[in-house]
Amino acid sequence: MNRILSRITSPTLLLDKKRCIGNIHAMVEKAQRSGVIFRPHFKTHQSLEVGQWFREAGTEAITVSSVRMADYFANDGWEDITIAFPLNVREMEEINHLAGKIKLNVLIVNKEVLPFMEQNLRHPVGIFIKIDTGYHRTGVDATDHKSIQEIIDRLDRNPLFKFSGFLTHTGQTYKSSSSQEVLKLYQDTVDKLVKLKENIHTHRERMILSIGDTPSCSLVHRFEKIDEIRPGNFVFYDLMQYHLGSCTPGQIAVVLAVPVVARYPERNEIAVYGGAVHLSKEYITLSSGKRSFGSIVQLNETGWNDIEEDGYVSGLSQEHGIIHAGRQLMNRTKIGDLIGIIPVHSCLTANLMKGYLTLEGEEVDHMGGN
Amino acid sequence: MNRILSRITSPTLLLDKKRCIGNIHAMVEKAQRSGVIFRPHFKTHQSLEVGQWFREAGTEAITVSSVRMADYFANDGWEDITIAFPLNVREMEEINHLAGKIKLNVLIVNKEVLPFMEQNLRHPVGIFIKIDTGYHRTGVDATDHKSIQEIIDRLDRNPLFKFSGFLTHTGQTYKSSSSQEVLKLYQDTVDKLVKLKENIHTHRERMILSIGDTPSCSLVHRFEKIDEIRPGNFVFYDLMQYHLGSCTPGQIAVVLAVPVVARYPERNEIAVYGGAVHLSKEYITLSSGKRSFGSIVQLNETGWNDIEEDGYVSGLSQEHGIIHAGRQLMNRTKIGDLIGIIPVHSCLTANLMKGYLTLEGEEVDHMGGN
Repeated sequence: MNRILSRITSPTLLLDKKRCIGNIHAMVEKAQRSGVIFRPHFKTHQSLEVGQWFREAGTEAITVSSVRMADYFANDGWEDITIAFPLNVREMEEINHLAGKIKLNVLIVNKEVLPFMEQNLRHPVGIFIKIDTGYHRTGVDATDHKSIQEIIDRLDRNPLFKFSGFLTHTGQTYKSSSSQEVLKLYQDTVDKLVKLKENIHTHRERMILSIGDTPSCSLVHRFEKIDEIRPGNFVFYDLMQYHLGSCTPGQIAVVLAVPVVARYPERNEIAVYGGAVHLSKEYITLSSGKRSFGSIVQLNETGWNDIEEDGYVSGLSQEHGIIHAGRQLMNRTKIGDLIGIIPVHSCLTANLMKGYLTLEGEEVDHMGGN
Repeated sequence: MNRILSRITSPTLLLDKKRCIGNIHAMVEKAQRSGVIFRPHFKTHQSLEVGQWFREAGTEAITVSSVRMADYFANDGWEDITIAFPLNVREMEEINHLAGKIKLNVLIVNKEVLPFMEQNLRHPVGIFIKIDTGYHRTGVDATDHKSIQEIIDRLDRNPLFKFSGFLTHTGQTYKSSSSQEVLKLYQDTVDKLVKLKENIHTHRERMILSIGDTPSCSLVHRFEKIDEIRPGNFVFYDLMQYHLGSCTPGQIAVVLAVPVVARYPERNEIAVYGGAVHLSKEYITLSSGKRSFGSIVQLNETGWNDIEEDGYVSGLSQEHGIIHAGRQLMNRTKIGDLIGIIPVHSCLTANLMKGYLTLEGEEVDHMGGN
């Protein structure tokens, strides 16, 4: 590891492969125990190499967040992909291209797109209806059985449309203040989906109830009454998930290594080369009311130590990071050192960094964002 | 333009070349009128093509924010570059490589790096001392004449070190609430730099006082007592600069075109394909106390209309944007339409989008971030 650290000259996203594979296996096994389909979301890592680790753990079906990402993974041999983003009619040509070569599922969030799809779809696609179970971002309200039944009736009349089931994202769990609240929101989501399923009719043999958020998937011990889980962030976890109680610090698999460029003991600050273009501007609010753009860890022989209680990233501009540092952290930090930062939101950090370095010094690919 | 818009299938950063070149010429002329060196910061656009527009306007000296960016532009023939980021000792090899082929200026923010530089620098470099004039990010406090004199004395003893002057970034102007406040902060910065210059001694013939922030450079009519300006953001401007009074809406040269994927009239919301991985999570706080992640414009035959009073981007997740839309905007917006979003911070948006499309349909390069 020292040999690897000495090679690092600029902000570098370190990936603990062992932890990452541990996270993958834990979720695979949990899905197996509950007998649900495991369709991990690949938007967090966007990596063919990390995808391969999933494949080796038995994963065959995946979720992505864009048509381009679907194409990226389809070209690497993934043949069962759900694009978990509202169908964008402007990308119909690319969707047709993909639907012609793999088992593709798309997401519809309203009936308005159906006439367009009926006219333009050329190959069979699986269709999930996005259900709004309380996050209020997109989807049909879970209690609006009438609209949902109308959509299904229309889907059932077209042989190219294979109605697959209901998909939801309980994104409100990311704003929870406790594990109990996450579990309550999860249960509420399941109840709404089950009630919906009982109240609608379709001639399809199977209807999948699919949930996705990492907090629920991490905290629920056994999935009941649902059929599929689509977590993504759990592959790396991050500071936000740790604060929600979704993971332990020992499960967090990525850390941004940044060079120290200045010290200001008189105001308890350390300046590092590592800013908004590396970490993103996502933050959490500490109990003190201050914003943290990342937690601090010390890099060591085999990876990194526990989270420092003595400091946090208090500010970010384009390439600068400011670390608020207590006396201990300040005293042992020299200009030219590397400091480790646990990102608040690993999906956004990975998207900005566009690549990883494992603790063994291997480079790991990333699609390159957007 | 309609032909160009009809080609757009996913989030695309539109660049109004005419406005951009107008912004460049206005700043070039202002610098000429004041007789100051114009050394624009290229971190906003990170583009060889946009760099060429500067070159055609007579620019020869530039500023960048990373060693990699210096290398990128040096390879395109730029031979006078200031890296306006605290010297990172871990990148000494790359710095030596650059210093061996172009006129390179580096920034030192403290005396601790001097022994390392004395030992490792192999070619002459210009050296600016970063002065903290109140932003408190990095640099030596403007009133700490003793430390600054010590650094200069040490620089003056080494023939490879060419002490160039004092550089500051009045970043506190970005948090101003009025143009008057920006001008007050600018004047305070100039006063501090002038006082510093009068109080230190060097055997160099010329000492440059260099300022950089776009709000000051935009609002000051005539630069006096300083020698160099390094604005960057002004090349595109953005919502933050408009709110500070640094520009008119008609000077903003980039807009993110995003496809509409869902409408929710019952809660005054439109969902678009365009999220944090396209715009960044930077926001401004509206007078209502709400956060805006972007303003809305209607795309038209020749570019885009004025800012809509009737809506703004109220939320962002990874790929989703939520637009709070009044009745007019809601009524005229259909699924599949393109909406224009003025980014809050164009530097971060450009860094994420990694490329531009001009209103004439030409693709314009971007270094690709970090």
